[in-house]
Amino acid sequence: MQKTAFASDNTSGICPEALESFIAANTSNVASYGNDEWTRRACDAIRDLFQTDCDVFFVFNGTAANSLALASLVQSYHSIVCHKLSHVETDECGGPEFFSNGTKLLLAEGEDGKLDVDGIARLVAARTDIHYPKPRAVTITQSTEVGTVYALEEVKAIGAACREMGLAFHMDGARFANAVAHLGVSPAELTWKAGVDVLSFGGTKMGMPVGEAVVFFNHQLAQDFAYRCKQAGQLASKMRFLAAPWVGMLQNNAWLTRAGHANAMATRLSDALAALPGVSLMFPTQANAVFVNLPAHVAQALKDKGWAFYSFIGAGGARFVCSWSTTLEDVDALVADVKSGL
Amino acid sequence: MQKTAFASDNTSGICPEALESFIAANTSNVASYGNDEWTRRACDAIRDLFQTDCDVFFVFNGTAANSLALASLVQSYHSIVCHKLSHVETDECGGPEFFSNGTKLLLAEGEDGKLDVDGIARLVAARTDIHYPKPRAVTITQSTEVGTVYALEEVKAIGAACREMGLAFHMDGARFANAVAHLGVSPAELTWKAGVDVLSFGGTKMGMPVGEAVVFFNHQLAQDFAYRCKQAGQLASKMRFLAAPWVGMLQNNAWLTRAGHANAMATRLSDALAALPGVSLMFPTQANAVFVNLPAHVAQALKDKGWAFYSFIGAGGARFVCSWSTTLEDVDALVADVKSGL
Amino acid sequence: MQKTAFASDNTSGICPEALESFIAANTSNVASYGNDEWTRRACDAIRDLFQTDCDVFFVFNGTAANSLALASLVQSYHSIVCHKLSHVETDECGGPEFFSNGTKLLLAEGEDGKLDVDGIARLVAARTDIHYPKPRAVTITQSTEVGTVYALEEVKAIGAACREMGLAFHMDGARFANAVAHLGVSPAELTWKAGVDVLSFGGTKMGMPVGEAVVFFNHQLAQDFAYRCKQAGQLASKMRFLAAPWVGMLQNNAWLTRAGHANAMATRLSDALAALPGVSLMFPTQANAVFVNLPAHVAQALKDKGWAFYSFIGAGGARFVCSWSTTLEDVDALVADVKSGL
Amino acid sequence: MQKTAFASDNTSGICPEALESFIAANTSNVASYGNDEWTRRACDAIRDLFQTDCDVFFVFNGTAANSLALASLVQSYHSIVCHKLSHVETDECGGPEFFSNGTKLLLAEGEDGKLDVDGIARLVAARTDIHYPKPRAVTITQSTEVGTVYALEEVKAIGAACREMGLAFHMDGARFANAVAHLGVSPAELTWKAGVDVLSFGGTKMGMPVGEAVVFFNHQLAQDFAYRCKQAGQLASKMRFLAAPWVGMLQNNAWLTRAGHANAMATRLSDALAALPGVSLMFPTQANAVFVNLPAHVAQALKDKGWAFYSFIGAGGARFVCSWSTTLEDVDALVADVKSGL
Repeated sequence: MQKTAFASDNTSGICPEALESFIAANTSNVASYGNDEWTRRACDAIRDLFQTDCDVFFVFNGTAANSLALASLVQSYHSIVCHKLSHVETDECGGPEFFSNGTKLLLAEGEDGKLDVDGIARLVAARTDIHYPKPRAVTITQSTEVGTVYALEEVKAIGAACREMGLAFHMDGARFANAVAHLGVSPAELTWKAGVDVLSFGGTKMGMPVGEAVVFFNHQLAQDFAYRCKQAGQLASKMRFLAAPWVGMLQNNAWLTRAGHANAMATRLSDALAALPGVSLMFPTQANAVFVNLPAHVAQALKDKGWAFYSFIGAGGARFVCSWSTTLEDVDALVADVKSGL
Repeated sequence: MQKTAFASDNTSGICPEALESFIAANTSNVASYGNDEWTRRACDAIRDLFQTDCDVFFVFNGTAANSLALASLVQSYHSIVCHKLSHVETDECGGPEFFSNGTKLLLAEGEDGKLDVDGIARLVAARTDIHYPKPRAVTITQSTEVGTVYALEEVKAIGAACREMGLAFHMDGARFANAVAHLGVSPAELTWKAGVDVLSFGGTKMGMPVGEAVVFFNHQLAQDFAYRCKQAGQLASKMRFLAAPWVGMLQNNAWLTRAGHANAMATRLSDALAALPGVSLMFPTQANAVFVNLPAHVAQALKDKGWAFYSFIGAGGARFVCSWSTTLEDVDALVADVKSGL
Repeated sequence: MQKTAFASDNTSGICPEALESFIAANTSNVASYGNDEWTRRACDAIRDLFQTDCDVFFVFNGTAANSLALASLVQSYHSIVCHKLSHVETDECGGPEFFSNGTKLLLAEGEDGKLDVDGIARLVAARTDIHYPKPRAVTITQSTEVGTVYALEEVKAIGAACREMGLAFHMDGARFANAVAHLGVSPAELTWKAGVDVLSFGGTKMGMPVGEAVVFFNHQLAQDFAYRCKQAGQLASKMRFLAAPWVGMLQNNAWLTRAGHANAMATRLSDALAALPGVSLMFPTQANAVFVNLPAHVAQALKDKGWAFYSFIGAGGARFVCSWSTTLEDVDALVADVKSGL
Repeated sequence: MQKTAFASDNTSGICPEALESFIAANTSNVASYGNDEWTRRACDAIRDLFQTDCDVFFVFNGTAANSLALASLVQSYHSIVCHKLSHVETDECGGPEFFSNGTKLLLAEGEDGKLDVDGIARLVAARTDIHYPKPRAVTITQSTEVGTVYALEEVKAIGAACREMGLAFHMDGARFANAVAHLGVSPAELTWKAGVDVLSFGGTKMGMPVGEAVVFFNHQLAQDFAYRCKQAGQLASKMRFLAAPWVGMLQNNAWLTRAGHANAMATRLSDALAALPGVSLMFPTQANAVFVNLPAHVAQALKDKGWAFYSFIGAGGARFVCSWSTTLEDVDALVADVKSGL
């Protein structure tokens, strides 16, 4: 049994489809810095997926994808509206502030880890003088840090509000696949058609060894972004090894199937745990993560048995994340150990 | 025949030893962000290699390794002495300036692409008022951008001068393996014993898919460097895939054997080309790169035949770089095509 | 009557003692960049005032004083604890984040606009992993943005806590004079003897045309700070005109007498307003600013009569600030207009 | 005699016209942060002077004016073409790099301290790949650091080249007055009509105590510049004291008369020195500074007599700068001491 199975989706390994093309890319000498066939194919695959001529850049990790994308939307004296539980605020060690040279994050409340139009509007209206940074962008996380998913209408509403208020719209899609799998809408619908200007499209949590894609639906915002990546230490010399896994994952819909599996495992776990006495869901389980309130002795019992998981918001909160590699056996073993600890 | 074989050592693929451990690392769930066994083993292997308790951090690429290492040595109002042909100056799109928030690079001349103590001292003495950035660090490239190697005594002399002038000493070792293979001295001798404070130890050009190591021999300078990496988008979540290749490469001296092969191929190519009428070496061939002056029609003939290579300093200069994967056949084919073009 | 008298203490003009030395400094050619007699005298006067050999730098305004002082205490991946109502958070347009290249401000609650040890300790303990900026400094505002003053014991307690937790301690003293006038303790007691590492000592609000002093009680933290000022556009070429007013103000205790006057005017205003029905103090009046809840129609009536003042925290809150130039007539006129509006 | 008279034009005091309005501005309470009548009048006076509806911002010093103006033209991964002897390169301690978060300065040669179109074009063409910062702006100094002045046609040629190459065009006019006085063309002709996008208009060297104006002729580039100033610690709270001297200086053409006097003193000094045996001009004297090669023993003799001046480019070079306050007696005394030292 894998006692680390639920610690995070980034404890998982490389998904077979990603590994296969990674290895296939390991042929003889190939042009570097993205001037190769694998990168061309990966970019084209992403353009096909989004049914539009977007600008695609591969970077190494999620902090970089988010920080560079956001930095391209603002200047240092601007601000970015995000949820107070968003990854850019809570888990990137000030990456967005660093790459933008000081841009402030404005923290909104919002149910289920989601921004809403009112919350954004309130922050934007709160200060309009030059003594406080000027709001210029909004970022949402899809799916969110608490395992929920913005409905298509919610994204559209934020997109419309951004247009109205003159704000750029970024989507942190470290778990974009899980959101699409949950909603069953097309990637195009969920992004540029809903007003998203730029997407951080997560590869690592989806099953790749390393690498995320930054996808600009607005060509103007992408201007000179290749320079930005290079300067920021985010241009891979052997780019084919970042790009090839995308080719593998996007073929035959593997990315979505794998994400659907992770979601299904989370749903199974969520259903089983929620049915237990003394256990309650902290947030609805809509993607691949389950947040539950566990009695303190149960949480301790799990830790004693070697289960790795994050505590969350207070003593009893526990986060269990599923991935492409989570098995039925993993889920059932965890549920059994929770039960036996009650 | 691989017509891209000599374009750069980063056109090469993944070396078998690196790939083998990369794949071996792809087991089930493993702790992320470096809290795993592969990362522990890789760090230990590097500490063994350098025979000292150094601080080791894995980052994604060379620009990041250099920029973050240098940023940890200076403040924005300081300056860094480097050679005018150094990679940090010519090929990182201002990465060092960006990560340090504005630190100026002071460009020294110096024969064969190498800094010398006089050149450093001249720049340090040139300005000592607060209207110009204050020198705080020196960086040298070992082996250099023009295929030469600092002799051990040269490194030691710079190390001693740095101590005397109160400057930190960084070594850009994107091709450190090639330098060690050429000199036949121990990594310890060539770095901390010679006064180097921090080394960017190149993995990619050595045969890995992605990843470099930043090695601090001075614990104080490494303080909070993990935070710096995280904030800068240089902390891999699935760290095992950056670390594992180091384990493979450092076993059985593979890293050195592979670098020695690359150097040998360069020497063979260099000897063959230098013997041709009308062809002359621009710099002595001491590592894995050959810089020659080719008659213009020969350069053109090579390009017409599909050979990829960089022009360098003026029309006739050509750079040919060998790697772990360069073959005798590659070398002989290139030489033959040069000959036939004369 | 001056209807702008209470808008802010920075609406006041130049205090006679400051103006006199400003004009006295306007003799013939004088060495620039601080290598002049006026600057030497001003620095000495500040060292005398604090009874210690501190390092003194004159900069142009408060945002610069605070931002540069804080930037000298942290790196970009660190964080700074401040009160959520502090000027560095609410009114410097992200200056601290900009000059530090991204350092995050951690916002503490705290009664009467004051940080306390518990609040600091909670924020410091909240996150200790590398995914969130590491606390490295604390900044308090003395007197605060809401017109209160830290008691000497409160400053000492924070100083002791900073030492224990390894945090540097900065005091934003844009209104330091008002705090000293209120407390009646020596500047030395209130700063370095209480553990303060660096002080932004406000000149402008005290009665100067332009200029603040950054005073380091810790020589090591002041290292290369002159370079930092120069690079940041904060080194005056005709430095004598920033320095001379300090000479004038620090002679014969003018700075303290003038601040005492401002405080007295605020007390008079506060007492008069608090005695009115329907009017209540939002915070105790301890320095030169009065915060009251006014009935909405009274606030409107004042505005209709041309009074300029800031609204504060909700509809009814009003801020009235006194300065060296506030007169009894100003105070009485305002009180009369409030009364007539009731 | 003023032995510091020629050290720099920033050793001079406040010009009577500037002082008069400075003092006139010291009335009772006045709105802060530029919302006052003096600031309005100063901005209008500058708009009148340039005969166009430009955007005007007052900042504290020249480093700030240049750095903020340049930062508004570029991103961190861009580069700025300047002369290798320009103030932004040699005397601002990396200010432009700091405020732009790392933008590289590309250093051009060029006769008499002046850029020319060929030099700019060469640097722009030198690198067009993403591994090197992308040129986005040109900055020239008018008058230059070596006392020369760009002819109107030279400025126009650079302006046209900038348009053609897609570069923004900044003019460092720390001594703009001296250039205009020399050329006898209108400020409008010399700036926006010649293609200049933004001008740093120097006040301090012209005779003010503190303060420069940043003048944008391109509204789009000025967008949110007020926020940039505020965040960068360059928004004066008592703005009237920065603005009022401009009102005084721009009335009755005082700024130009004063600059003309400085130029005339420099010409007189230049003519007298050039006529001496063993003394030669390093650059033509076109503005208010004289650069001469002095025999080493003469330079030493001057220093022994207490004269303050900068050495320049090698042992014998000496710089003498005149200002609004330089007198005939100053000039003649210096000439006499040079003569007696021969």
